Amino acid sequence: MRLTQEQLEQYRDNGFLLLDSLLDENEVDRLRTAFQRDCNTPGPHRIIEDGGEEVRAVYSSHQRQAEYARLMRDPRILVPAQQLLTDDVYVYQFKINAKPAFGGDKWAWHQDFLAWQISDNLPAPVQVNVGVFLDDVTEFNGPVIFLPGSHRDGLVHEGRKEERKSSQHLDPDDISLSPEQLADLVDRHGMVSPKGPAGSVVLFSSEIVHGSAPNMSPFARRLLIATYNEVSNLPSWPGEARPDYVVCRDSAPLAPLDGTFLDDLEEATV
Amino acid sequence: MRLTQEQLEQYRDNGFLLLDSLLDENEVDRLRTAFQRDCNTPGPHRIIEDGGEEVRAVYSSHQRQAEYARLMRDPRILVPAQQLLTDDVYVYQFKINAKPAFGGDKWAWHQDFLAWQISDNLPAPVQVNVGVFLDDVTEFNGPVIFLPGSHRDGLVHEGRKEERKSSQHLDPDDISLSPEQLADLVDRHGMVSPKGPAGSVVLFSSEIVHGSAPNMSPFARRLLIATYNEVSNLPSWPGEARPDYVVCRDSAPLAPLDGTFLDDLEEATV
Repeated sequence: MRLTQEQLEQYRDNGFLLLDSLLDENEVDRLRTAFQRDCNTPGPHRIIEDGGEEVRAVYSSHQRQAEYARLMRDPRILVPAQQLLTDDVYVYQFKINAKPAFGGDKWAWHQDFLAWQISDNLPAPVQVNVGVFLDDVTEFNGPVIFLPGSHRDGLVHEGRKEERKSSQHLDPDDISLSPEQLADLVDRHGMVSPKGPAGSVVLFSSEIVHGSAPNMSPFARRLLIATYNEVSNLPSWPGEARPDYVVCRDSAPLAPLDGTFLDDLEEATV
Repeated sequence: MRLTQEQLEQYRDNGFLLLDSLLDENEVDRLRTAFQRDCNTPGPHRIIEDGGEEVRAVYSSHQRQAEYARLMRDPRILVPAQQLLTDDVYVYQFKINAKPAFGGDKWAWHQDFLAWQISDNLPAPVQVNVGVFLDDVTEFNGPVIFLPGSHRDGLVHEGRKEERKSSQHLDPDDISLSPEQLADLVDRHGMVSPKGPAGSVVLFSSEIVHGSAPNMSPFARRLLIATYNEVSNLPSWPGEARPDYVVCRDSAPLAPLDGTFLDDLEEATV
């Protein structure tokens, strides 16, 4: 599936693009099952709730679960990412976040690329983030909020420390925008949060300013965010490298499957 | 202004009713000015931000500011409240909350009447809350969220302590719904948050389950909530009474003005 010229322009203008109901219910079911399977697989890729047993997030499921390995090459997802970048691409980061009921991440407004520049010396902002809704996303369960067009301003550096506090640990202060910077940006760009049924997909720039509302609902909300990066734009670490479940090391160029991820999975298991 | 039969039925069914842009821009401007004036008036009615100087809320402005005294008798607001109750009404509580940027109240899901039963021995749930938007209310700046129809279940008592922890201090645990209760209620009723431009008004039942999202935006958001109570349904305190700026003591029946609050104010000052 290729993005139309209009969709490409929307992405360039706004810094994000919503593809409503891209995956069907059966596909979403299979992805949920694979997520649960990955939650039940012990390992450092699982982030467990503080003082609890609930898994709040898993990293790099595409390295263990056949559904996600193939989803990353599903033409409906990979081809748009390729269209939006110049070089070949690979999966730089893969995370499924189960935002818990009555809670979830605070609203640290930030630009992803700044974090990756600091943590991984990523040379250029040539990434596309792909958010796959594994549950319906509503105004109540912690949608991602974008400042549309804010990616065209480049990174907001003003007032930031030249040096990060630690070479290993990423402090939110290193990447969070100040209230004054955000007031100015919201005045100019406004706020938008794409919503839609499970199976919808949102593509977004690594330079767009975004935050995340808490989950006001009594149900957890699962969201996959995968980041494609250009294969010539690799991370490097002067000191200790980030773990390979957080920053994927396999940078071989991805080629789209012929069919959907489920078609391909059925064929492989015949 | 009288509510139509359809509006009355909507309120009875849902437990709330939005009146879009009931007040015009000039009226909202005047109300904002009066709020600022009340913020600048020293006294216990002002709630100051912890460790700051910003006023986060004021109580009972209608006892000091001519605009608000008259607004409480504006026929567009008082008459609907009278229609929704049986007996004559007076203002039981009046509060303007300036929900600060990037913050605001936590999402304690609750029913107002339970709090008033505990704190003020209020006999019956014969109140109408009137929310007046002094700023645009959007999905991003901390709208009130209702579970429509939840007022028809009566008070959720199950699992609650029979005795409150303190006769003076209202503990959130005394009135907050449990996650399990809320999951059940949301399954049955869903969630809705009325939004609209400044000057819009939302009427809501003292028994409807509601919460409040945090303000994700970089701008404060001002909301007036006034509560009309029936004059035969008065509070009483076996011990120390709550302060009169929190629970208003003047229970004389209110009569609507002939015109709008500004018309009446102009006449009075001619």
